Amino acid sequence: MRAAPSPEEIRTRNLAALLRHVHRDGAVSRAALAERMGLNRSTILALTTDLAAAGLVSEELPGQTGRAGRPSLVVRPRADRVYVVALDVGADRLAAARVGLGGSVLERTETARPGGAFDPDEVIAALAAMARAMIATAAPDARCVGVGVAFCGMVREEDGVVRYGPNLGWVDVAFGAELTRELDLGLRVAVGNNANLGALAERERGVCVGLANSIYLHGDVGIGGGIIVNGELLGGDGGYGGEVGHMIVNPGGRPCACGSRGCLEAEAGELGLIAAAGRSDPPGQAAVDAIVEAAARGDTTARDALRQVGEWLGYGVANLVNVFNPSVVVFGGVLREIYLASAAQVRSRLAVNGLQAVRERVRLRTSALGGDATLIGAAELAFTDVLTDPLQTPARPSAARA
Amino acid sequence: MRAAPSPEEIRTRNLAALLRHVHRDGAVSRAALAERMGLNRSTILALTTDLAAAGLVSEELPGQTGRAGRPSLVVRPRADRVYVVALDVGADRLAAARVGLGGSVLERTETARPGGAFDPDEVIAALAAMARAMIATAAPDARCVGVGVAFCGMVREEDGVVRYGPNLGWVDVAFGAELTRELDLGLRVAVGNNANLGALAERERGVCVGLANSIYLHGDVGIGGGIIVNGELLGGDGGYGGEVGHMIVNPGGRPCACGSRGCLEAEAGELGLIAAAGRSDPPGQAAVDAIVEAAARGDTTARDALRQVGEWLGYGVANLVNVFNPSVVVFGGVLREIYLASAAQVRSRLAVNGLQAVRERVRLRTSALGGDATLIGAAELAFTDVLTDPLQTPARPSAARA
Repeated sequence: MRAAPSPEEIRTRNLAALLRHVHRDGAVSRAALAERMGLNRSTILALTTDLAAAGLVSEELPGQTGRAGRPSLVVRPRADRVYVVALDVGADRLAAARVGLGGSVLERTETARPGGAFDPDEVIAALAAMARAMIATAAPDARCVGVGVAFCGMVREEDGVVRYGPNLGWVDVAFGAELTRELDLGLRVAVGNNANLGALAERERGVCVGLANSIYLHGDVGIGGGIIVNGELLGGDGGYGGEVGHMIVNPGGRPCACGSRGCLEAEAGELGLIAAAGRSDPPGQAAVDAIVEAAARGDTTARDALRQVGEWLGYGVANLVNVFNPSVVVFGGVLREIYLASAAQVRSRLAVNGLQAVRERVRLRTSALGGDATLIGAAELAFTDVLTDPLQTPARPSAARA
Repeated sequence: MRAAPSPEEIRTRNLAALLRHVHRDGAVSRAALAERMGLNRSTILALTTDLAAAGLVSEELPGQTGRAGRPSLVVRPRADRVYVVALDVGADRLAAARVGLGGSVLERTETARPGGAFDPDEVIAALAAMARAMIATAAPDARCVGVGVAFCGMVREEDGVVRYGPNLGWVDVAFGAELTRELDLGLRVAVGNNANLGALAERERGVCVGLANSIYLHGDVGIGGGIIVNGELLGGDGGYGGEVGHMIVNPGGRPCACGSRGCLEAEAGELGLIAAAGRSDPPGQAAVDAIVEAAARGDTTARDALRQVGEWLGYGVANLVNVFNPSVVVFGGVLREIYLASAAQVRSRLAVNGLQAVRERVRLRTSALGGDATLIGAAELAFTDVLTDPLQTPARPSAARA
């Protein structure tokens, strides 16, 4: 019922669609692009010429195909020329990566973050320093086209305000705006919830490719959820959907940082596991690994702790499976190790509490992206602008800032 | 990236869009339709002429407008000529309605259904008799354009198979196909989960009009959920999403018909309330009403029971609000009365367990459609075909079957 799009709008949409194809798939022949996009080859030629002139793609002859006739040129994303900076604020680490168009991680760095409350200015200064170091190492003719941040808390995406970051003690911090100002790249820094971005990363490049309904559970000190419903991230009314960590699985149970008791993250996250194992390690990947290793060596306290945590995780998974009927549930962050070490409990809880019609096809998987799902999701967020309007993105060479 | 639609496809889409406007809003002027649909008035004229010739709409002069100039004709849905039959299979009742285009309930009937397992053939025969009686009373030139059924269980929507109907003891019953055969109207009987259809009804004609994210909770012997995410019903991988009744709120709690313990419906549904009140009434609206009335008279056992049930309902609502970030949660079926009598507990649980950013804007409401949300949703389901392709719908006058 809308007015027909203008030729200029159609061209922009087609440029964006073509760039998304090569960004996602790495290298695609012109012939395949023509077929997938339903466009004729002369239109594809015009589009790739424009994208190549802007330094976004290159064209080259494919390897030996064994077929007769002139081969179709292959279109590749120019990871060497176009990149984003991805940042990840976890409960116990800061990470940064430079990610090229096409999704290749060109460079990656990480630093431990002490636990407890943490001053926003210090975090912002540290992230800006990491981002600048990344940009400084890029080739002079390479362009940074976006900066994306995964944050372990509730984020208002439109302006990057952190509404609630329990593990850093943040409430209503204008994080995105301040980091944008601090970096001063002429680019808006986009901020998203880390589990939501992990879910996007799994859908684009992980175990959820092509799936319309999936749940990504991310564990660090807390447990976050990124839920894909009908192909789209579940946002809800204010964009805060997916806070599965504060689903109560054990009424009256362990106290949670949010003020409630018995939340999924209090029972099945790092803190729940450490407490159940009777330890006092600071939370983090190392503490989880130590308990998992102790259990593997036969330590019964560690085994019992994992069994108990797996039971609560199983309740959470069964509830989510009944409510969402997803085709896959993915465990990321420290939940990978926790799930792998307690899979029997999780699966048995699901078998008891999941309804037949919904559990019969759901698969439980660990993240295919290692610990980097959230960071890769932040990169995808940062690529949004160039993948929406490839020729309009403000994207200056690194050298211009030298 | 798709090929442009043909003129015939565009016309069908426009006919459907126009009919949806008048179906939803009752009577709309041609001028308003032109504005809302972004079409010129001569196109609107052509479309309404086609729809009027098919007996789907009528045109008439509006009442006195007080404005100068020739008034724009008003287009109305022809409830007198075009109707659907809506059926509702609840845990303790069968209901049927004849609903005219535009959503007016022209006729309605209901019969109590004894509790416990119930033979599918008997249910199908009873529903077919109710549907036939409805059709027999329609005017000879009125056409039945669809039959929709709301069912209290898990339904595979594409073929109307009931995968699981715990309160009737049904597993994998070819309900839709058998009712289609039994009715023999030349129309496929469409079947949906009752809570999903209640959610659709609230979105079209109830308290969720215009809202993109809402949750409808339907109580009878069980508790079902119909969840609207980003404007669409949450289906999930197999269409079984929204089974909130089997979210475990009380691990190890009351046994549930599904085989688990502590499910939301076991703790906060009719059976949980009756047990908490120490009664032995058969489940149903009457049993709930009796307890609510007793509590209002000061009966402390009834009050305590409602307080306890409200506590579990509050846990369920808080979990759903944290996970979905909806703008409204609607209580329908017997949950209307249960919620109204225990609202203090539900709200206080939400205040404790809901995260600030998600609970600050959510509203808790009772259904605006009385006990008929599921039945009205079944009617909306039955209207799907005519609202998708208005002129192609097989729609024979009742007289043709006489």
